[in-house]
Amino acid sequence: MTTHIGFLGTGLMGAPMAANLLKAGFILTVWNRTGAKTRPLADAGAGVADAPAGVAEGADAVISMLENGPVVTEVLFDRGVADALAPGALVIDMASIPPSTARDHAGRLEKKGVGHLDAPVSGGTRGAAEGTLAIMAGGALEDFERAREILQALGRATHVGPAGAGQLAKCTNQVIVAITIGAVAEGLLLAAAGGADPAAVREAITGGFADSRILQEHGRRMIERDFVPGGPIRMQMKDLNTALDAAADASLALPITSMIKELFQALLDAGGNEFDHSALLLELERQSPTVRLGDGPDKLP
Amino acid sequence: MTTHIGFLGTGLMGAPMAANLLKAGFILTVWNRTGAKTRPLADAGAGVADAPAGVAEGADAVISMLENGPVVTEVLFDRGVADALAPGALVIDMASIPPSTARDHAGRLEKKGVGHLDAPVSGGTRGAAEGTLAIMAGGALEDFERAREILQALGRATHVGPAGAGQLAKCTNQVIVAITIGAVAEGLLLAAAGGADPAAVREAITGGFADSRILQEHGRRMIERDFVPGGPIRMQMKDLNTALDAAADASLALPITSMIKELFQALLDAGGNEFDHSALLLELERQSPTVRLGDGPDKLP
Repeated sequence: MTTHIGFLGTGLMGAPMAANLLKAGFILTVWNRTGAKTRPLADAGAGVADAPAGVAEGADAVISMLENGPVVTEVLFDRGVADALAPGALVIDMASIPPSTARDHAGRLEKKGVGHLDAPVSGGTRGAAEGTLAIMAGGALEDFERAREILQALGRATHVGPAGAGQLAKCTNQVIVAITIGAVAEGLLLAAAGGADPAAVREAITGGFADSRILQEHGRRMIERDFVPGGPIRMQMKDLNTALDAAADASLALPITSMIKELFQALLDAGGNEFDHSALLLELERQSPTVRLGDGPDKLP
Repeated sequence: MTTHIGFLGTGLMGAPMAANLLKAGFILTVWNRTGAKTRPLADAGAGVADAPAGVAEGADAVISMLENGPVVTEVLFDRGVADALAPGALVIDMASIPPSTARDHAGRLEKKGVGHLDAPVSGGTRGAAEGTLAIMAGGALEDFERAREILQALGRATHVGPAGAGQLAKCTNQVIVAITIGAVAEGLLLAAAGGADPAAVREAITGGFADSRILQEHGRRMIERDFVPGGPIRMQMKDLNTALDAAADASLALPITSMIKELFQALLDAGGNEFDHSALLLELERQSPTVRLGDGPDKLP
């Protein structure tokens, strides 16, 4: 019996993910707020619903890849998806939303006999297109097992704990990314300020304990002063705020994350919303006006 | 003509490095403060000097792998090495010392017609034994070219700029390592505090943008609560102080590094000198007494 999947949100990430599900042989019905974005998927064989509830009727599973927590809540509960799902169906929410909201959704669906996984992703549009997303899944282990075949078409999925744990894992990811950007920015600025060649220093320390994806990719961006996103600062700020709220809920102080958030906030206040998050460098340079990493012009969005 | 090398300091790092130079066919004379440590090298064919100046006589190059800046200054300039070197010889200082001290040494040797490279390393005793150290070299490019054959026997060398730049690169390395430890500690604590499985979260995010050598090795240590060094906090503090002094010399503020230094200082004040630097986790846990990463016992030195 072929699995019927409903797919909510076919934007930059959702469209290639839905296309991979079609390729894997699933029967797919899609909905998107801006209907035109569903056309390539319709051409590839997907059904198109003109309202969210339409993807839920007869679906074994509904995947949502929507913008933020309030939109997921609205689409699932105010626009009829939850009511249209049969008991035994499964919601897989792959948007990045607060852990507390994910737990609330899981609880409300459980009352209807509908399963829920919070399964946010890392890997960007490239990972979505190539089916190589890192998927962090929270929820009941049996729901994770039921979803395994679906998730395999999208990337590498790991079960990380109960409801909300997938969103927490995404917060962990974003906290580590943001602070590591700060680490690389301060390290390279120190090299430049003291008269070393930052590009040669980056090359010299790659492969040692200082090595990271951020040193490799964002370190190169900083040296080239290429701040065209990539990952825009407004998204990084949304994720850091979610992480700090989740930490506060758990009586956890995150002093380094809090400082990094202040640095990004200063960039936002100066109009840097759409700059790549490696532009954290610019705020550190603003604080030390005689120091600059390299002498090329800034590439800005 | 075979190159004659003098080697100062055959401790944990220096002894295997000197052994690799012997294996590569160089003629070696060694000196160490505690003479007994030179015996295995003597058995392998090295000459042994009973004073530092003894390694310099007739040497094409002198390598120092000593404890800190004052010791390097004392051995090179107060105990006769600089005076015993012939014009055209080369000093390769591979200890981690302040960039300003390295520049001073280079200037003093230049007046005697002796070349100087500051060439600190990363990779630990294992890298020293395997000849795979990352070597960050500052100084004149022609001196770096002259030293290439020697450095190749010890690891992978990169020329990163003029005198002092090698030490700056080591500071960059240590700043990035220290902050990235903070990144991983805060991220994993958040996962644990919210009820996710930190080991599964670490597994899920490995390979993505949050990935780093620190996530892989120190992240595992934190989850296993294994704080036996590795890299002891007192060494991390020495390097952070050197980095912050070098930053101050260059009118550069490093707010994140300064915060990390305060966290390590609190650990030192609590008696954690010999704990591995991944024990930064313990200070974050102390600040949030209801949160703990895992429930195993601490492994302490």
